[in-house]
Order: sequence, then C-alpha cells, then structure tokens
Amino acid sequence: MRIDLNADMGEGFGPWTMGDDAALLEVVTSANIACGGHAGDPVVMGRVMRAAAAQGVGIGAHPGFADLQGFGRRRMHLSAEELGGLVAYQLGAAQGIARAAGLEVRHLKLHGALSNMASEEPAIARACFQAALKVAPGIRLVVLAATPMQAVAEELDAAWAGEIFADRAYQDDATLVDRSQPGAVLHDAEVVGPRIQAMLRAGAIITASGRQIPARIDTVCLHGDSPDAVALARRLRTHLAGAGIQIRRFD
Amino acid sequence: MRIDLNADMGEGFGPWTMGDDAALLEVVTSANIACGGHAGDPVVMGRVMRAAAAQGVGIGAHPGFADLQGFGRRRMHLSAEELGGLVAYQLGAAQGIARAAGLEVRHLKLHGALSNMASEEPAIARACFQAALKVAPGIRLVVLAATPMQAVAEELDAAWAGEIFADRAYQDDATLVDRSQPGAVLHDAEVVGPRIQAMLRAGAIITASGRQIPARIDTVCLHGDSPDAVALARRLRTHLAGAGIQIRRFD
Amino acid sequence: MRIDLNADMGEGFGPWTMGDDAALLEVVTSANIACGGHAGDPVVMGRVMRAAAAQGVGIGAHPGFADLQGFGRRRMHLSAEELGGLVAYQLGAAQGIARAAGLEVRHLKLHGALSNMASEEPAIARACFQAALKVAPGIRLVVLAATPMQAVAEELDAAWAGEIFADRAYQDDATLVDRSQPGAVLHDAEVVGPRIQAMLRAGAIITASGRQIPARIDTVCLHGDSPDAVALARRLRTHLAGAGIQIRRFD
Amino acid sequence: MRIDLNADMGEGFGPWTMGDDAALLEVVTSANIACGGHAGDPVVMGRVMRAAAAQGVGIGAHPGFADLQGFGRRRMHLSAEELGGLVAYQLGAAQGIARAAGLEVRHLKLHGALSNMASEEPAIARACFQAALKVAPGIRLVVLAATPMQAVAEELDAAWAGEIFADRAYQDDATLVDRSQPGAVLHDAEVVGPRIQAMLRAGAIITASGRQIPARIDTVCLHGDSPDAVALARRLRTHLAGAGIQIRRFD
Repeated sequence: MRIDLNADMGEGFGPWTMGDDAALLEVVTSANIACGGHAGDPVVMGRVMRAAAAQGVGIGAHPGFADLQGFGRRRMHLSAEELGGLVAYQLGAAQGIARAAGLEVRHLKLHGALSNMASEEPAIARACFQAALKVAPGIRLVVLAATPMQAVAEELDAAWAGEIFADRAYQDDATLVDRSQPGAVLHDAEVVGPRIQAMLRAGAIITASGRQIPARIDTVCLHGDSPDAVALARRLRTHLAGAGIQIRRFD
Repeated sequence: MRIDLNADMGEGFGPWTMGDDAALLEVVTSANIACGGHAGDPVVMGRVMRAAAAQGVGIGAHPGFADLQGFGRRRMHLSAEELGGLVAYQLGAAQGIARAAGLEVRHLKLHGALSNMASEEPAIARACFQAALKVAPGIRLVVLAATPMQAVAEELDAAWAGEIFADRAYQDDATLVDRSQPGAVLHDAEVVGPRIQAMLRAGAIITASGRQIPARIDTVCLHGDSPDAVALARRLRTHLAGAGIQIRRFD
Repeated sequence: MRIDLNADMGEGFGPWTMGDDAALLEVVTSANIACGGHAGDPVVMGRVMRAAAAQGVGIGAHPGFADLQGFGRRRMHLSAEELGGLVAYQLGAAQGIARAAGLEVRHLKLHGALSNMASEEPAIARACFQAALKVAPGIRLVVLAATPMQAVAEELDAAWAGEIFADRAYQDDATLVDRSQPGAVLHDAEVVGPRIQAMLRAGAIITASGRQIPARIDTVCLHGDSPDAVALARRLRTHLAGAGIQIRRFD
Repeated sequence: MRIDLNADMGEGFGPWTMGDDAALLEVVTSANIACGGHAGDPVVMGRVMRAAAAQGVGIGAHPGFADLQGFGRRRMHLSAEELGGLVAYQLGAAQGIARAAGLEVRHLKLHGALSNMASEEPAIARACFQAALKVAPGIRLVVLAATPMQAVAEELDAAWAGEIFADRAYQDDATLVDRSQPGAVLHDAEVVGPRIQAMLRAGAIITASGRQIPARIDTVCLHGDSPDAVALARRLRTHLAGAGIQIRRFD
C-alpha cells in the first residue's frame, strides 16, 4: 500500500509569506504551487520550486482566480473561454518558471473557489482541464476523489490522481461537511492517522456516518498554514509510515 | 534581399482594445504579443495568436513590466532575479496560451521601458535573455541592431534577429533620436520606404547625419496604434515589395 | 416636468480609452465616474472630472468590483465587510481626485455586477450604501427605481434618485428583460423618446406588457460606449427637450 | 521636551499579514497606514485604523507606488500628473476608510521608493504634497528632517512634522548611511535611546561623524516588521520616557 501526500505551497507574494514551506517540504511528496493568480509571484514560485526539487518533492501548478485580495477563495463567474485562458496562462507561467530552474511541472490542482466550483459544475472542470491538457498533454490532474471532477478527468482520458482531505469529514455524497458544522475539521493526529489508514485499506472514502464510497485514493491533502497544521502533517506521515504504508510520489 | 516586418499586437486588456490587429496582420510577418504584464489578458492573447496563425504570421512573446496603468513604459528598477522571473513567467504564459491553441511561440522581443533599459544596460538584457533561453532554448531574440542588446544575444549564443525602426531617426551611436527632437519620428511613406531600402542595401543603419553603422537587419518594426500608422505600414510593405525586396518571416 | 440624464464615464485605464466622454458630456447632466476598481485610474478620473465640471455636469462615484479584466461585470462574492470597504475606498478615492481638482462628488451609483447583485440582495445594497453614507453623509444614491435597492436607500433615510434605463425593456416586476430576449434592448430613438416621455408623464415604469409600475423617476441612464449609443443619447435629449421636458441635474 | 513616535502599519494585504501592529500600537503615537498601493486593502486599512483609534494613536495615510510585488520599494518613474493622482487617490481612499469608521486622517507620510525619490527630487515632493494639500488642506506632512522634502513642505506653507530614524546612521548631508555600510543600521537599544535623546537635546541630527545638523525633530520613525524591531521600539520608548521626554502625538 502506498500514498502520496500533497500540500499547497508558494503562497507568498512579494514581501509576504504564508505557511512554512521548508517544514512542509520535509513531509509531503507533492507540492501544489500557486501561479500568480491568487498568490505567488515569479520570484516566490522559482524559489519554492527549487526547494521542492531539492527535497525530491513533485512540482505541481495550482491555478486559481486572479484575486489576490480574496486569495482565490471568492467565487467569480467566468466564461468557459476565460476559464480556459486562466488555466492555460497560469500553467504555462508555472512551466516557464520551472524550466528557468531546469525543472518540470508534473501535476495540476485547482485552487480554492475555482476548485469548489469545478467540483460542482462539470462544465467548469472541463474548461479548466481541457486547457491544461492542451498546454501539457501528459500532466497529471489532481481531482477530488469520487466527484464530478474525477468524472471529467476520466472523460478527457487524462492521467489523474484521486485526492482525499486528511482533516475534513465527508458527507454521504462524497462532498465535505461544511466547516460550520461540528466535527467538520479534524485536528487530532490520533484520529486523522487511523482514519486515513482505514480509507486506504478500504479503497474508499469513509463518511462521517460510516458509509464507504469506493474511491481510488492516490494522494492526501495536508495543510501547512499554521504551526499546528505542520505538526499534524508531520505526525500523520509518521503514523502512516509506521503502519507500513509507503509514502511515495504518485508519478 | 529579404526582410521581416514586425509589430506589437494583442495590446488590449479585458474590455479595452488598442490598434487594429486585424489590419496589421495583413501587413506584418511577425507579431509581438503582449503577455499580461503591460497589456494582454489570456483571452486577448489567445485570440490574437489564432488570428496571427491564420495569416501565417510568426508568434512572438512581448514581455514588459507588470504595470498596466503605465503600459510598461514607466521605468521600474528590478533585481536580476526579478527580471529573470518576469520574463520566464510571461514567456511561459505565452507558451501556455499558444499551446492551448495548438500553436508555438517562436520569438521574443522586450517591450517598452524594459527594452529601453535592456538596450542600455547589458546586465538587464542578460538577466532577461538568459531566463528566456532557459524557458525556450530555441527561441529567437529580437534585438535592437548594433546595440549592447545584440552583443548580449551573441554572448549567450542565442538565435537572434536584428531590428531597425521604420519611423525613427538614428543618432550616430545607433540609438534613436529623442522624440522631443525635430525629425525624430518619420510619418511620410515616401521617405520611410526608400530609407529602409537604402539601409537594407547598405547592410547598415543610416543615421540622421548620414553615417552608416554596419548592422545585420532582419526585421523592421512597424506601428499600428493609429489608422495613420496602419496606412504607413501598408505603404511601406508595398514600397519594399515593389523594390524587389522579399517580405518574409525571419525563421 | 424635469429629468436628469446620466451616463457612465471615465472608463478608460492607462493607455486605453472607452467611449466618447467629450461627446457624452454635451448630452448628460450627471456623470458616473469609474473609481479604479473596474476601470479608471487617477489620471483618467481627474481628467474626466474636470471635463464634466467644465460642462456643468454633476460628478458621481461609480464603484465596482476590483476586476479590470472583467470590467466589473463578473459576479464576485464578497463579505459585507469587504463590500463596505470596497465602496468606502473607491468613493473616498473619487473624493480625493475631485478635491485635488477643486471639485466635489455629489452622487454615487453602483457599477455592473455589483449593481446587479445589490438590486437583487438588499443585504448587498445595504453594505454598500451604509459605507457610502458614512463616508459622505449628504451623497445622493442613484437607485434602480422601484427595486429593493430603492427600498434600502429609503430605509437608510438617504437622499436618492430613481433611475430608469432609456434603452432597455422592463418586465412586470420592474426588472429588466434579459438581453437574450427579443426586444430587450431598444435602438430606435423614435421609440425610445416617446417611451421615456410616457413614463415621465405617468410617473411610472411602463413594462413590455404595458403594465404601469408607479415610480419616482429622477434620471435616465444613457450609454456612450459606441458612436451609435452617443447618437441615440443625443436624439433622446433633443426629443425630451422638444416635448417640453426640462433637462436638469437632479441636485 | 516631547516627541512623537511613528511606525508604518496596516501592511498586510488580503490573507497576508506583516509585522505585529497590535504590539506596535502600544508603543507609537502615530501610525502610517498603507493605502492599497504597495500594501493594505480596504479591510486591512479599516481594521488597523480602528485599532489605532482605540489606542489613541494618530492615523496617517502612507501612499506608495502601486506595486504590490515590490512593496513600493522599487523605483518607478511617473509624471507629475501621475504622482499627484497617485497621492490624491490613495489619500482620498484612506479618508474614505477612516470616515466609514468614524475617524479622520491627520497626517501623511510617503512610503518607500516614493519617499526616497521625493527626498532627492523637490519636483517629486512638490507634485505629491500639492495634491495632498488640495485633498486635505489641514493635513500634516511628515518630512525627512533637514532634507529638500522639508523645504518643499515649507515652500507650500504646509503643516509639517520633522522626522528622524531611530535605527539608522546619518551622513553629514543629513541623508542616511547606505545599508550596505557597516554601522548603517543600529540594533542596540542601549545605543539608540541615548542617541535619540542627544539629538532631541541638541535640536539637531547628529551624524555618524559627530557633526550636528540643526533640525526640527517632531517624530522618530520606528520599525515593527520583526519581533526584534518591536522589542527595540518598546525599549526606546521606555528609555525616552525614563529620560523625562514626553511621548506625545505631534498634533
């Protein structure tokens, strides 16, 4: 049994930093790197890509809405042409920065509100993924496991990786329990570790009610935006490795 | 004898347009396409690239300072790392948009104040061109003929195209006569045509004083930001073709 | 009987222009001036404000979403705090530019998607208008006549002006017929003139079905983004004046 | 003997924070609040203004170049009209946010590269200060003591406050020793406290060579961008108060 661990990174901009990328890079195997839309300027991008490569961590583009103030978390309503352009532009820019450092972008994961909207509306996922695949035909798409986003990746015959969240409870339709509900966000490594382990063994998302939704689980999303989050990520990795699960990049 | 004709294009943004790209694309053989820094959003870029390809016009990236209000014409002082990142990001983004449309970027020309600064400071040209060549090793750099910018392209062993301006008078050091001086900008096709023709025959820039500066001249820069400019471009093309000079892409 | 005529202006940015503000300023009595969010930089704002004042046209702030690419026409989902901040910031900026020119901002009209959302969701109108009234207690709010936006202005005890559109057909609930429907947009001055005149006489919006919705009509919105639009605006003004309706600023 | 202590604040943007404004607000008497150009969005601005007012700290506008990536520290070359517009826009916006919170902006200090350029080029200081005074005739301008910036404030007959830096060594022409030189930046509160005290007693800037340049010193600039900086600020305040110097807002 094996699993990839991914986290969002390179979310600084100009003088501003966010999270502890150096610490996270010792834990994860895939880095989703902001591309200048919701965060990440060319210098920030280049530095985190080089640091990821030095740790053997896979480099991914993480496009989001062009909304620095809202950090790509505010929903915006774009046409299919605008969505495709957004993704092609940011993915191309990430490839440019990677190549300038002698590196390659090997996966793509949508960010924030763009990801939420794409997981609800197949047309949005399709506009984004089609553009990405034209820019980089071999790129691996990270999709929310067992959602319409995965269905679009399959329909486009793309390489994809199914993702679950380490620290979020699931509803019976494979969507996340809203953050406003009790138990929606899990903070205890003693709970999170065995839970992920159980999902990997079951080959299924296990929902808050205990239901199993069969799913291909290739990668687990961790967070690193606080010292607590980094500590949880570290303990989760230790737990999974201790349970005999191989922590390995999905490529 | 042959020559390429180039012009800046795709200089709209969102709802705003600039110049008459459709008309220009019937005149030029190379299009320098804004990359989202000083102008050009992903939708604008994609549309003009497809239009250029439909006319057989070569597609180039035209990176500039990230300054929409100033249209990339205001000097900004960036570190070498920032300059390299700026060029790698915008060139990569242009490649992304091109590939999403099934096309390729084949040349690069710096825009506005970035070009002015790079033609004065070899270190600036070097930071920009090194980044571009890492992103796209085979890309052709458009350089101001007989300037330090050309020397940097040669030093980097890059493919390059030497450029002269159709409508600007030259000083004896191969720099342009300042726009504030009388005669700095030429508006008369009857003057511009024979002048370009003479330079091509001489293999030299001919300065306002009549001096000849030997130069490899591969492409002539035209403007299209006004109906007059487009008309001048059209007449210049007709003149050169009538004089037996082949109008052909530099690649 | 009297009426104010308003139009959006100052919708350029940096090197880009939009519409023919000079021509429109000879037709309208109120100018809604973009504030740097969806269009309008400080230089553009200052120039159009001075031109408006020279024609005796009232100066208004026209805040919109901070989305140049989408020209403020793409819906974005902001918190009440973000909405209030957006309006306070842009209105304050407009006041700053006005004062630097010795002028004053006397009205406020929401732009594009922000206006659409505020006319549907009273909470959005309230967040915007409350902020505006704290920044400028005496400011006059331009509201879509007979909509929830008007109700919010009344609830806040604000000075307001009721607005109708010259060139758009109305549904029976006082909302506009969708642009995708036949007859939604009116282009013929021979139709538009008498229609506005009839509404003013009736003191009511007259819908596409002929129904009358009583409304206080203080101002008519004209467009100036094309030569046709300016010509229509001019003919409408001539028609109304010929019908004995006084064209006068609403303050 | 009395002195004001000022620091830059509200330098976050969207999800990003910078420095510890809450801690600094217990130390300083004047806050220079970023206005959305180099940092500071409307929400960030409103929050720090309310926090400043709650501590009795004076609120100032801190306009800078519209360059988030460069944090306003990269020199940009603007026309006088652009400079005036930049300052009028950002000062007006700051007033808007302040009024929305029931507060007032009482001083203005230029930021980063704009301040550096204005202290070297009287024409730049003049363009900025003239615009500010038209927007807010009674505003107090914070100027680098004994520089051309002060001369411009005097020439414009403005209220002004002369500022020195707590932690920077001065050259004999009243400019700062370049950061690249040894001793340019002072980190030791045991040195900084007595040094400021000596300058206040002397009514003069004391340069690195020991020379005295007579200067009206109204305020001392502190930094808060690191825990060390906040600690130094706190110790400096304690030292000055212990030496019988009254710490008081300059208004």
